[in-house]
Amino acid sequence: MQDFSRFIREVSDFPKPGVVFKDITPLLGNPTAFHRAIDEFALRYKLEAIDVVTGTEARGFIFGSALAYRLGVGFVPIRKRGRLPYHTHEATYDLEYGYDVVTIHQDAFPKDSRVLLCDDVLATGGTLAASIELVEKLEGHVVGIAVLIELLELSGREKIPNYDVFSLIKC
Amino acid sequence: MQDFSRFIREVSDFPKPGVVFKDITPLLGNPTAFHRAIDEFALRYKLEAIDVVTGTEARGFIFGSALAYRLGVGFVPIRKRGRLPYHTHEATYDLEYGYDVVTIHQDAFPKDSRVLLCDDVLATGGTLAASIELVEKLEGHVVGIAVLIELLELSGREKIPNYDVFSLIKC
Repeated sequence: MQDFSRFIREVSDFPKPGVVFKDITPLLGNPTAFHRAIDEFALRYKLEAIDVVTGTEARGFIFGSALAYRLGVGFVPIRKRGRLPYHTHEATYDLEYGYDVVTIHQDAFPKDSRVLLCDDVLATGGTLAASIELVEKLEGHVVGIAVLIELLELSGREKIPNYDVFSLIKC
Repeated sequence: MQDFSRFIREVSDFPKPGVVFKDITPLLGNPTAFHRAIDEFALRYKLEAIDVVTGTEARGFIFGSALAYRLGVGFVPIRKRGRLPYHTHEATYDLEYGYDVVTIHQDAFPKDSRVLLCDDVLATGGTLAASIELVEKLEGHVVGIAVLIELLELSGREKIPNYDVFSLIKC
């Protein structure tokens, strides 16, 4: 597999002092790296009969949409509360202080669909666990979870232990 | 051209009473319609030597990313203030009450790049005018503006009169 990590820029003290943020925009802006990342995801899942790809707002839209296009399937946005206009299901996840809510349209896909979840980063796993909860409320089958970056020290996989996680960068 | 409008769902009183919201999620969820929309954009611009595609947060990411993938070029996210981690330029646009700010990384693309801007909806044109301002601050050349839906009654083109706007749905 390519070494995608050299296209990730570390930005210190963002979004707050002490945090080193993984900036994915150099990868997105490089045609070869961006194209190759999507193709690596597609290669991993092309025999899995995926019916639909989800992306979680906002950076998950970037990878999920291009991957859905590449796989020839539909794309389903998972959004923060109040952004989707039709009937929704909701799931909550913990933040450092408080909680947040993600939503999915109740008619996003038919039951028994084979669903691939996509996001940019697997950190603590909270957002992805909530996204899985939404897919399963619709009786979708979670085939896998594709992320660009997995932050190993945050042990996000432990929050979603029964699911297949595929990451292009582990750091 | 295909009639994409039948994949748009109208939702009354969203996000507030009296507004009829154009919901693009049925189009995104339909593999044929989604794929075809991206291909129509690509067909329109494939001889324009595009260097980079931008997408404006958040729904602009969905079309911009897939289109950048399809054209084999990089993708640049234009985001709300405080979301991009590195050095940014800012542009403001008016809201009904007050204003909002969009930002771009100062190193998003080299000067003289040929840039295609992408968004889901051209409404009043405020967000797109601000996005154009950002691209031109970086001395990029705005080749065109690709949107899924153009809301004709809001006359958004009048705010960006000197630019080529391509929309798949006019309503």
